[in-house]
Amino acid sequence: MTLFGVNATLPIAFSTRMRAVDLIRKKRDSKELSREEIDFLVSGYTRGEIPDYQMAAWLMAVWIRGMNRAELTALTEVMLHSGEVLDHSDIPRKKVDKHSTGGVGDKTSLILAPIVAAGGLTVPMISGRGLGHTGGTLDKLEAIPGFNVNLSLTEFRKVLRECGMGLIGQTAEIAPADKKIYALRDVTSTVENVGLICASIMSKKLAEGIDALVLDVKTGTGAFMKKEEDSVQLAEVMVETGKRMGKKVVALITDMNQPLGRMAGHAHEVLESVEVLKGKGPADLRDLSLDLSAWMFFLGEKTKSVEEGRRLAEKMVATGQALEKFRQGIRLQGGDERVVDEPMRLPHARSHTEVVSAARGYLGIQNCEQLGTALAMLGGGREKKEDKIDHAVGLEFHKRIGDRVEKGEKLVTIHYNNDAKLAEAKSLIASSYVVNESAPQEKRPLVRRIIGA
Amino acid sequence: MTLFGVNATLPIAFSTRMRAVDLIRKKRDSKELSREEIDFLVSGYTRGEIPDYQMAAWLMAVWIRGMNRAELTALTEVMLHSGEVLDHSDIPRKKVDKHSTGGVGDKTSLILAPIVAAGGLTVPMISGRGLGHTGGTLDKLEAIPGFNVNLSLTEFRKVLRECGMGLIGQTAEIAPADKKIYALRDVTSTVENVGLICASIMSKKLAEGIDALVLDVKTGTGAFMKKEEDSVQLAEVMVETGKRMGKKVVALITDMNQPLGRMAGHAHEVLESVEVLKGKGPADLRDLSLDLSAWMFFLGEKTKSVEEGRRLAEKMVATGQALEKFRQGIRLQGGDERVVDEPMRLPHARSHTEVVSAARGYLGIQNCEQLGTALAMLGGGREKKEDKIDHAVGLEFHKRIGDRVEKGEKLVTIHYNNDAKLAEAKSLIASSYVVNESAPQEKRPLVRRIIGA
Repeated sequence: MTLFGVNATLPIAFSTRMRAVDLIRKKRDSKELSREEIDFLVSGYTRGEIPDYQMAAWLMAVWIRGMNRAELTALTEVMLHSGEVLDHSDIPRKKVDKHSTGGVGDKTSLILAPIVAAGGLTVPMISGRGLGHTGGTLDKLEAIPGFNVNLSLTEFRKVLRECGMGLIGQTAEIAPADKKIYALRDVTSTVENVGLICASIMSKKLAEGIDALVLDVKTGTGAFMKKEEDSVQLAEVMVETGKRMGKKVVALITDMNQPLGRMAGHAHEVLESVEVLKGKGPADLRDLSLDLSAWMFFLGEKTKSVEEGRRLAEKMVATGQALEKFRQGIRLQGGDERVVDEPMRLPHARSHTEVVSAARGYLGIQNCEQLGTALAMLGGGREKKEDKIDHAVGLEFHKRIGDRVEKGEKLVTIHYNNDAKLAEAKSLIASSYVVNESAPQEKRPLVRRIIGA
Repeated sequence: MTLFGVNATLPIAFSTRMRAVDLIRKKRDSKELSREEIDFLVSGYTRGEIPDYQMAAWLMAVWIRGMNRAELTALTEVMLHSGEVLDHSDIPRKKVDKHSTGGVGDKTSLILAPIVAAGGLTVPMISGRGLGHTGGTLDKLEAIPGFNVNLSLTEFRKVLRECGMGLIGQTAEIAPADKKIYALRDVTSTVENVGLICASIMSKKLAEGIDALVLDVKTGTGAFMKKEEDSVQLAEVMVETGKRMGKKVVALITDMNQPLGRMAGHAHEVLESVEVLKGKGPADLRDLSLDLSAWMFFLGEKTKSVEEGRRLAEKMVATGQALEKFRQGIRLQGGDERVVDEPMRLPHARSHTEVVSAARGYLGIQNCEQLGTALAMLGGGREKKEDKIDHAVGLEFHKRIGDRVEKGEKLVTIHYNNDAKLAEAKSLIASSYVVNESAPQEKRPLVRRIIGA
């Protein structure tokens, strides 16, 4: 009699052809896969020759066992070359982009893309949508009436040539391997893994045909990576992988223990981005947007130093050139550019309510992620990919960490349309905050570290 | 912008319903799953509500992270109750079975089933097919012209009532969860895991409606578990799980560093089994078959001791009652019982060739598994489930470990029909053997240890 459940695999294979089952076993047993083996798996999966269940088992083995740097570079390259790698050699200017790991109120893309395009570089930005507690650039842009993020690659190139910036979603042509693997990771709990995250981000970003990339790796309670060492590890891996592939890459490790700026929610974030482009808006958001732009100018060889880049960025805002570029970008992608001056043209919510401080003292945030989750609950985010977003829903943050607050003072204004989950969202927001008797010891800088400079 | 590949899972779930993705994550993170959670996954998968890719990711996480005893018992019970658990309460005699983890030439089921049935117990044996280097009882039985292993459960019960033994394959009603999971494990490299093996075997065996089970856990180069400690671990887990579920279970750890008996191959093994039932045949096979029968008699409360069980088993052979029972069993399952006295009625191969000793000295086997693989290569086994088996192909072993051999002396006779892979098979067989200058230091017993007695 045979051992049920055991005799199904051949210890000595009858043939020597490559088989997915053997490569799964290899990774399961913590062995290194060659570039050819990774290519066999990923290309086979993309073509539909290797089924979901085999890729799922392999991804779990990778999640647990990890990959070394050579495997990671191979995976990134295979995923990159699974589709079209854009070629903008007809555009003489350097192509640069920024990617953020996501947080609450993180809207810098909307600000720095026009700044950098106005400053003379090209920003071919392929973005994602929000899911969970973080927002997505595409969704924010779609709060602008008429804005079309689904350009064909031909249209995208045309917009890029014309105004130096373009913001679209991942098309079928760009890194199809990643698109398929990403969807599978989502439902198999193989998402939060430095190697897989790196390959996913870098394959898509490098498919944009860029010369340089600035990474904004968030850290803190509102970030995906809560611990700074994890953020640093991810940043290092991405920087190294990008450099191995011949690109200029720098990563800024930035604080995400509180929302960036004063607004979260799609229409609200467009509004706040416009404020910054007009030289106003909250200091933290303005500062980080200018810093990231500065690095993009420097890596894109527009300026000789980061400091000079910062000055150029400031000039683009001060002269109104960045705002004008934003208007042009909206117009070229079919959007209503009048939102820049007439905010009431953005979707707005019917009702609002407040969350107030429960005590007197100094404000702290113990869980910034909950603020993003509360927003999503109210319709301003998705639980599942198919969910529709209410662009009008938003949170307005009146206080920052360390601010002195009175009992009953407004902390957050909630703008909402549907009160089905309002009580739950309010309690989630309230429990995100703490009030301390004494002021915080130190004020930590927004930019914690710079990796790869 | 969002972190591509990261923002897809919700750290705070919007709802509290059970989700497969969360249970996958839990096991991935080495946490214990509750019985309800295991039931949710396994029952949902069996009903087709949870897709293959989620089960594959969970199986890989289980493979790497392991399960504790409570999880294992829960998994076994959930799999057991995924289908019908046979009820033979209309048969007054105790129901006992044996299960072997498989090896080369392991044909004891064909011998002990008639011995134990003749001795007054009922043996409701649900067996598997061979794959890889090990054979399967069902395939061996099908070497007997007309033998039908695909009885319905009603027919199976009728045969059991009439003659006390029945040998069939897993039906759709028996442990369907295992059937589905087993197929998936096969293609996702999640086979060789003590917990999953245990749950697979025990769920099926306990679905037979037995009171007691004797496990023959093989160890050595021809076994699935090469190291004795692994075999012992599997044996202990199976014995404990069976006992937790109220069954009498004992495991014999037995040597599989060389083929059991002198024959491997389907028709050849039927022939050799008949020899043993006639009181002849090789000593090792006879001895182990009688030992296993003895334990079955004892656990089935037919005898007061294992020794008495052994004497009863010997008597069943000596009086011809076991052979007569085998004839009856073949007849009742539609087979040609004349094969017992007319071996030429079994399929036989057209050609034969020899593998001879390359040197003079004392014989050793460095890789017994290769002998099984060589047999399979010649058509006597399967690489894939769909492969057809040539029942006539066989290997005849002329020498045992420690035997004195001359250079050029016959070691193995190969009976074959197709010479496409003959050279490869011959070289595999030749390289399985070594010839040493001195005799082996000690002769290890066939039964190494007994677990759970």
